[in-house]
Amino acid sequence: MLYLIGLGLGNERDVTLRGLDAIKRCSKVYLEAYTSVLGVDVRAMEALYEKPVRTCDRAFVEQGVDAVLDEALSEDVAFCVVGDAFAATTHSDLVLRAIERGVAVRPVYNASIMNAVAGTGLSLYNFGKAVSICFFTQTWRPDSFYDLIRDNRKSGAHTLCLLDIRVKEPTVRALCKGIEEYEPARFMTAATAAKQMLEVEESRGEGVYGEDTMCVAVARIGQDDEKIRACTLGEMRRVDMGAPLHSLVLVGDVMEIESAMLATHAVKPEDFYDGDAPCQMLDG
Amino acid sequence: MLYLIGLGLGNERDVTLRGLDAIKRCSKVYLEAYTSVLGVDVRAMEALYEKPVRTCDRAFVEQGVDAVLDEALSEDVAFCVVGDAFAATTHSDLVLRAIERGVAVRPVYNASIMNAVAGTGLSLYNFGKAVSICFFTQTWRPDSFYDLIRDNRKSGAHTLCLLDIRVKEPTVRALCKGIEEYEPARFMTAATAAKQMLEVEESRGEGVYGEDTMCVAVARIGQDDEKIRACTLGEMRRVDMGAPLHSLVLVGDVMEIESAMLATHAVKPEDFYDGDAPCQMLDG
Repeated sequence: MLYLIGLGLGNERDVTLRGLDAIKRCSKVYLEAYTSVLGVDVRAMEALYEKPVRTCDRAFVEQGVDAVLDEALSEDVAFCVVGDAFAATTHSDLVLRAIERGVAVRPVYNASIMNAVAGTGLSLYNFGKAVSICFFTQTWRPDSFYDLIRDNRKSGAHTLCLLDIRVKEPTVRALCKGIEEYEPARFMTAATAAKQMLEVEESRGEGVYGEDTMCVAVARIGQDDEKIRACTLGEMRRVDMGAPLHSLVLVGDVMEIESAMLATHAVKPEDFYDGDAPCQMLDG
Repeated sequence: MLYLIGLGLGNERDVTLRGLDAIKRCSKVYLEAYTSVLGVDVRAMEALYEKPVRTCDRAFVEQGVDAVLDEALSEDVAFCVVGDAFAATTHSDLVLRAIERGVAVRPVYNASIMNAVAGTGLSLYNFGKAVSICFFTQTWRPDSFYDLIRDNRKSGAHTLCLLDIRVKEPTVRALCKGIEEYEPARFMTAATAAKQMLEVEESRGEGVYGEDTMCVAVARIGQDDEKIRACTLGEMRRVDMGAPLHSLVLVGDVMEIESAMLATHAVKPEDFYDGDAPCQMLDG
């Protein structure tokens, strides 16, 4: 049996009892650690699980996972995922490969940013399609999110913007020379996302949103130091949300209760960066 | 402190360790039990929590909750919610009232149908606004979901349809005479939802969807006997998804991997009702 276990958003204690029961039953525990990251070190998980945890990077999940599936044919194996079990498409791919090999799969659901974003007070019912915002480089400035946001705004829907995470990305040198060398981990801030979004609006010019559009940022949601701040997109370029992970919601039409909830999260003077916000660009 | 604790989808062991830690710390534990229901009796929760759980109906939450907030001014109080902490607008209302009274609120996130629906293999990124489908009566056949589904389908988005739950609804006699008397609990089946949706298409006639539109139903998601079945909306009228709770997704444009995942959930002959599907209408 392959248990596909959502670990939730914050630390090792966000696993469910059902998830922990399954992990305790398993002979091997793998942790997918590149589509998101938990707020604690893997050693904290190992202490709770009372067994070793093997961390998997993208290369392992995409190429080396067949060995895990072979193990799961005869043993109980836990494949742990930050957030929910099905948070990323990669996990569907894993399920399909498992079915192909005759491995039974059991998911254990948990919170992900896709539903915890309701902590902003915006109703999940009123969200349209989610978008991803990637780090712009000198030569690569993908703006396909703009069209999706346009569709959402036409129907008054909110847009959850998931912000780029670069964990264990090979350096250019590593790619050229076939050596193992990684870029430092980078996480997009809400401020950087706001800058990039406004830059795209300026170049596309269709008036899908602007500096006065309301948005709300969440940081470290589900952790003890969770931070939620609502302001205009123009202001968000200078709001300091602190440590990762950040997400940003572009607000659509709001009901009265959503508006009242956003008001409780309004930015305060101390939320702003002194001077310029660090715009975490990756050079191409 | 008021802890707003998501209990997850299945049984008492779907609570997170963070949630259980909070419950153990609290002097009082309340359970909101009308926007959704857990697959186990409250006694199973009490055994796990080692303290009594007070079940709250809609009237209590909407009118009597101020006493709970007063308690939370001086004690740690747990307000438990099936699914996620912010699954329903009611809970935002509770947070606003708490803030007004100076009560600190801490949410504990968990899975809800809004993200666990990804267990179908459809990507959460590609969902548009969610809709609610209410039991039709002779005189009340609300069809506002139709316009929302139209918007979603224009942009190729999937639509999560949340199906009516009638728990502890006062009888007409109770409303007239001011006595305490309740209708038996009723839960809409995916088959009934499909019938109602096709009836609305027939009367509105805009061709937003039809009998050949692909859909996928989920039943008891997150529980050990979770069932997921994909077929056309016409077929879904006769598919037996078993015990509650059911939800239905009207499928939009699919990526290759979503299509492959849906194929693993295709209906089989034994999934169909013998004879006619019970169409759970409430008479007006």
